[in-house]
This record gives sequence, structure tokens and C-alpha cells, in this order.
Amino acid sequence: MNKYIAELIGTFWLVLGGCGSAVLAAAFPEVGIGLVGVSLAFGLTVLTMAFAIGHISGCHLNPAVSIGLCAGGRFPVKDLLPYIISQVIGGLLGAGVLYLIASGKAGFDLSAGFASNGYGDHSPGQYSLVAVVICEIVMTMMFLIIILGATDDRAPKGFAPIAIGLGLTLIHLISIPVSNTSVNPARSTGVAVFVGDWAVSQLWVFWLAPIVGAVLGALIYNFIQKDKA
Amino acid sequence: MNKYIAELIGTFWLVLGGCGSAVLAAAFPEVGIGLVGVSLAFGLTVLTMAFAIGHISGCHLNPAVSIGLCAGGRFPVKDLLPYIISQVIGGLLGAGVLYLIASGKAGFDLSAGFASNGYGDHSPGQYSLVAVVICEIVMTMMFLIIILGATDDRAPKGFAPIAIGLGLTLIHLISIPVSNTSVNPARSTGVAVFVGDWAVSQLWVFWLAPIVGAVLGALIYNFIQKDKA
Amino acid sequence: MNKYIAELIGTFWLVLGGCGSAVLAAAFPEVGIGLVGVSLAFGLTVLTMAFAIGHISGCHLNPAVSIGLCAGGRFPVKDLLPYIISQVIGGLLGAGVLYLIASGKAGFDLSAGFASNGYGDHSPGQYSLVAVVICEIVMTMMFLIIILGATDDRAPKGFAPIAIGLGLTLIHLISIPVSNTSVNPARSTGVAVFVGDWAVSQLWVFWLAPIVGAVLGALIYNFIQKDKA
Amino acid sequence: MNKYIAELIGTFWLVLGGCGSAVLAAAFPEVGIGLVGVSLAFGLTVLTMAFAIGHISGCHLNPAVSIGLCAGGRFPVKDLLPYIISQVIGGLLGAGVLYLIASGKAGFDLSAGFASNGYGDHSPGQYSLVAVVICEIVMTMMFLIIILGATDDRAPKGFAPIAIGLGLTLIHLISIPVSNTSVNPARSTGVAVFVGDWAVSQLWVFWLAPIVGAVLGALIYNFIQKDKA
Repeated sequence: MNKYIAELIGTFWLVLGGCGSAVLAAAFPEVGIGLVGVSLAFGLTVLTMAFAIGHISGCHLNPAVSIGLCAGGRFPVKDLLPYIISQVIGGLLGAGVLYLIASGKAGFDLSAGFASNGYGDHSPGQYSLVAVVICEIVMTMMFLIIILGATDDRAPKGFAPIAIGLGLTLIHLISIPVSNTSVNPARSTGVAVFVGDWAVSQLWVFWLAPIVGAVLGALIYNFIQKDKA
Repeated sequence: MNKYIAELIGTFWLVLGGCGSAVLAAAFPEVGIGLVGVSLAFGLTVLTMAFAIGHISGCHLNPAVSIGLCAGGRFPVKDLLPYIISQVIGGLLGAGVLYLIASGKAGFDLSAGFASNGYGDHSPGQYSLVAVVICEIVMTMMFLIIILGATDDRAPKGFAPIAIGLGLTLIHLISIPVSNTSVNPARSTGVAVFVGDWAVSQLWVFWLAPIVGAVLGALIYNFIQKDKA
Repeated sequence: MNKYIAELIGTFWLVLGGCGSAVLAAAFPEVGIGLVGVSLAFGLTVLTMAFAIGHISGCHLNPAVSIGLCAGGRFPVKDLLPYIISQVIGGLLGAGVLYLIASGKAGFDLSAGFASNGYGDHSPGQYSLVAVVICEIVMTMMFLIIILGATDDRAPKGFAPIAIGLGLTLIHLISIPVSNTSVNPARSTGVAVFVGDWAVSQLWVFWLAPIVGAVLGALIYNFIQKDKA
Repeated sequence: MNKYIAELIGTFWLVLGGCGSAVLAAAFPEVGIGLVGVSLAFGLTVLTMAFAIGHISGCHLNPAVSIGLCAGGRFPVKDLLPYIISQVIGGLLGAGVLYLIASGKAGFDLSAGFASNGYGDHSPGQYSLVAVVICEIVMTMMFLIIILGATDDRAPKGFAPIAIGLGLTLIHLISIPVSNTSVNPARSTGVAVFVGDWAVSQLWVFWLAPIVGAVLGALIYNFIQKDKA
């Protein structure tokens, strides 16, 4: 049970910290943190939690990661559903606390997007559905290769939280303009539920593409490291 | 005695470095470091000191952290008061040296805030008292979970200063616009004393909320890791 | 064979991530990541891949690095050609996927440069050919000294991906305005092929200078560490 | 002899990388790296070199550091002079190569400062001599405490290059507006010689203050850790 609560808390932190930095600080006048700061924030939520709760739950914080680890033979199928449920609840709670904080400022408006993911008119840079799907698949694929590689027995011990956290930072540095960067269905769901409307109706993309990418990444990593045995 | 001096020096550095980057460099024309730079600076004061004096005092640099570690059973109650006193003195000295440097520029004015924490009209983004309280509680709660988790026997050895320092960076990336980010009563007190007025009258929030959050975080971490024994 | 595929995937990531951050996010209105973000992205592609595939292929991702390691006696000559071919193919694939994503936005135009390297009128800051050649030689030379030193038996174990990845970040922080920073013929080739024209006709510089620099760096490192035996 | 060459190369890199990022990239139109990028660059020159040549020379790259380590009993007096000479030569060479590159752009002008350190009218933010002296002393003092602490036998093994490198980044995040940040006489001398005039006549401050600070820092660290034996 503890590991499910750990996943919930970790995903709570990922959404509150990552989306929170975007909503609260990205465009603060003159000294705002911009997309560099948001990218750093998303990555650091994972880096900090991986050091803090990695030894409890493995620190997935992401349904696509849990599914990819399953596909790669690193995570038991029986834990998959409770992990995903915990992650989605955590994401919703993170978005909820962010809403409480953000709405404490006059003029706050959910219609600004609340850091939701989207395509077409709702992509930050108006990227097409096809571009968003390709981007989310490839980014999640590479994320899983980083995760599986950095936690491989042959990789340096103890460094995986740095590799994986900064890997998520990197993914955001590349792809925020395209899809606002999901690679994580729980993160997308958390904020989309508050925005409703287009954010919910586009949500399927940010479940489907990250999961496809994660499974692809797991298969590729297992293929290239197979001389291990 | 050495550990008290170490805490004093470390908190001196946290305030001089963190608040110093904000006062001296954040809004420097055209090339200023912005909130990303200030967030990085606060985190790096803790990262550097944790490597430098962690083996002497544990490097708390923060009354809320010392209290939270007490609540979590990781720090003896008898050291609590001398630690807090050392931290507050260090914070005041850090603010004092910052004042000496900052006032060496024509036109320097304490009424610009001197990196003090505040709510309402004195929040950088004019966030309400309720939003500030929620934000400070949750941020400090997560900070303690990071600290307790990263220093858990089961976490990778040697990496805690990175996790904790970058955790503080993350907290600032999210919450500077809300409260100017405290999560540390000694940091808040150090600069507030120089500004006086509103900064001192709002100071209770930045003692109360971080301490409540720290105790909550310690209880939560101990709860989710309890199958340890 | 696995190590060649690993090099291909790693170089794919270097070009997609590094050049992708430049093309997609560097100049995004108001909150763009700028050259700091691009520098971080390039470095993080190497940091993440070095943790993920370092144990499979050594993670060169760069013909100049492979040649320099050969010159330094750290890499067998017989693997040189397949490594370079894998890296160039990976770079082309990375540029190809980037093209697919980037062209999903109305108004995308390859003539903006697609993160190609260049000198004279095609240098971001209009630096002369001589300045570009000196810069690329010296940067790659220092890159090899970092790589050879950080992977020396006497250096701390496990940290090389951090030193090398952040070393590439540093190189970009210095030299993007000069040459758009290559130090890597596969990275230059990947995007230049899509731009054609001037990017291809200037490409020789970004093969020649990095290779000269890499060999120089390897000779210098071996010279200063020779009392090892 | 090898260790002297290593110090020369390392200081060459510190000046070329740190001052180079400032001269070439800090104020690049629209996407310039600003003071955050310059701070990161200075720190990363030390981080990368500490991993690359730490096992050869200890990687001081700074006369004030060598003198402080001497004062702290960590470095033999007999090596002091050759280290300082190597560092100054390295700094001059770094500035020389930077000049070659920077002057490859039409309109380059040394009178823009070439990243020299200064006080009064030549401080980036016009800070007074007193403020500059206090700032340089305190920053170098804290730098030595970080260096001595992170390399203490009781500190985590292998992490010192990260603590020390990012410590230098932190120092720059705070103090570039004050003095353009020296804390390193070799760095100041390297560029000042090219600018001549005011940069040379103010150079004494950037030898005296860092050395005073370094000795103070060494004495303080040895005092607070004395229960070690």
C-alpha cells in the first residue's frame, strides 16, 4: 500500500511543480522563468522524488512509464492498475492544489490553459495533430530508453534519478512549443479535468501517444542490450 | 559548538547568496538572471553547503527543517534551540553583508523589498494570504519529504545534497511569484529585520506556515516508509 | 552490432534534442529558451545517453570523438568506420524526425537555417572563417581533454556522463554565436543535408576542424597524464 | 611538471570559457545567455576540469585557491609559485585565444570591457570600491569553505567537482553586477592585460581581495572542523 501512496504523492508533486511553475512563474513580468524554468521544474520534480521515494515505489509517476516498464519486463503486471490509479489521483490532487494557489490572484483564468496539453489551435505553437503525435511518441520512446538504460545493472549506481530527471527536462526543452509536452497521461489528465472542454476532448492523444512511445522504447532498449545475458 | 557555527555560516550563505542574487542580479538590465537565476542560487547555497558542512552539522540552515527533522525522529530535541538561534543569527548576518554590498550602488533602496517575503500587496504577484499560506505549507511539506527520503538509508549514498539543493531550486521556480518563497523562517527574518514595517508585521506567516508544512512532511514520509523496519 | 545501433540511436537523440530545441523552442515568443536552453539541451542529450547506453557502446555519438579516442589509444581502429557510419545515419534520422515535427507548424521554413553550422554570413554572429576554425578546433580539443580525463581510471567513478554532458553544454554556451557550435561532424551533416546549398558547401569545415581538435586534445591529454604508468 | 601544464590548461579553459561566454554570447540579440549563462559557464569550466585533471594537479586554476589551500595546510608551499605562474600564463593564453575568436566579428571592440573586473565606473552596476572589496573577500572566503569542506575526508566521495563548480556558478549569480566577479586573480589578469588602461590599474583589487578572502575561508573552515582529530 505504501508504494501506491508514494506514487500518488510523487505525481502530485510532478503536476504541482511542473504545471505550477508554468502557470505561476513562466510569464511573470520581466523576470519570468520562461520555458527553460518550466523544463527545469518538471525535471526536478522527478529528480527529487526519485531520490526521495525511489526506494519505496520505484518512482514512476507516470502511467506510460509503468506500462513501458511492464513491456520491458521490469515491472509486474499485477501492480500496473493500482499504480496508474494512484498516479491519476495524484495528478488530480496536484492540479487541485495548484488551482487553490493560482486562484488566489485576482484575474486568474483557467481559460489561459492551466498548462494543459493540446494540438492544433491548442498547441502552444499551433502544431498539427500529426506533429504532436509523432513528437509525443518519439519523446516518450526516448524517455523509456533513458529510464531502462540508466537503471540497467551495468550503468553507474545511484545516478539514475539525475539521468531520468534531467532527461525529462531535456524533453520539455524540445517539445513544449509543440504539445506543451505531456509524455505522461497522469500529468495531462490532472490539469485537463480542471479546464474541461477542448482539454478533455484532446486528452486521448496524451494517453495514446505516450503509451505507444513507451512500449516502443522498452522494446528498442531490450533489443539493443540483449547481449547482456 | 562547531556545529552551531557551521549552521550560522551556512544560513549566512543561504541568505547572502539567495537573497543576494535576487537583490543584486535578478533585474539587472538586459542580462539579469531573473527568477530562474534566483531559484538556482537559493538551491546552490544549500547544495554547496551540504557538501561543505553536512558532515559537521547536518546542514539544516532552516528552523523549519530542524523542527521537521525533530518531528521525524532524525534530530535530537536538545539541539533544536541552539540550531534555530544559530540559523537566525546567520540569516541576519547574511542580510547585513548583503546590505553593505547593495548599498554601495547609488540609488539602492530598501523599500524595493530587499527580497522579503510577503502576502497580499507585498506578494510579488499580489497573491492572497490564503494562497500564500497554502503554498508555503505545501512547499515546505514536500521539501521535508525530499530531505527525509534522500537521506534515508535506502537512498543512493552521497547524492542527498544534490536532491535537497535542487529541490529548493524547484520550490523557488514554482513559488517566487506567490510569496517570494520562504519555506525558511531564518531566511525570512534575516531580510525582514532590515526592511521593518510590513516585512516584520507579515513575518509570522513565514514562521508558522513553513513549520506546519515541515511537521506534516515528516509525518507523511514516516508513514509511507514505515515498512522499513 | 548492438553497439552500432546504440550509437545510431544516441546520435539521433543528440540531433533531435539539440537541434530540435534550437529550431522549435529557442526563439518561441516571450518565453523562448534562448541559447541557454539550447546549450542545456545539447549537453543533456549526451548526459542522458551516456547513462543509458554508455555500457553498450561507450556513447561517442560523434565521429570526432571516436577519432580522438582512437588517437588516444582508447578505441580500436577497426570499429571506427562502423561507428562513424552509425553516427551519421543517426544524425540524418534525427534531422528527419525534427523536420517532420517542425513542418507541422504553418510557416516553417528550412531557409531559417534548421540549426545548421556555418561561417561568414552563415555564422549566427557573422564570424569569419578563421574565427570559426579556431573556435571549433579549440572547443573540440577541450572536449576530448574532458572526455579522456573524466573517463581516466583515476577520476571519480560514474561521474563521466555528467562531466562530458555538461562539458558540451559549456561549449555551446561559449560558441553558438560563432559557428552555431558543431564540434560534431554527424550533428552538422544531419541538418545540413536538409538545408542543402550553403550548409552543405560549408560542411567540410565542420568535419575538418572538429577532427583536428579532437586529435590535438587526445595528444595533449596523453602528454599531461603520462606519469600514470 | 605535468601538474603545472594541467593547471595552465585548466586556467586557459576557465578564462576562455567563462569570459568567452560573457564576451561572445551574453548579450547576443534576443536569445543571449545573459548572466545566468555566464554564471553557468564559469562554474562548468571548473566542474569539467576538476573531473578531467583533478587527479593530475588538484585543479586549482586560481592563485587565491592555491594560497588558501596552503593556508589551510592542504597544499605544499614549495608548489605555490609554479602553480600561480602556470595559472597566470594559462589565463593570458585563454584571453589570447578569446581575442582571436572575438575579433573575427566586424565591430568587435576591446573597450566594451572584454569581461574585465572593475569597481566604481568600471563595475557593471557602478558599485563602489568598498562594496567590491567586501564582495570579493566574502565570495572567495565562502568559495574556500566550499572547496575545503567538499574535499574533506568526511564529505561524499567524488562529488567535490560538482560542489565546487556549481559553487563558482552561484558566486557569479550573486556578484557579476558588483565586480563582474573575479574571486580569481589569474582570470582577472588574463583579460585585463588585453584591455590595459583602467583594467590594469584596478587589477590590484582582484589580487588582494580574493587572496584575503581565501585565507580567511581556510582559517574559518579549519576552525569549525577541528574536532575532526
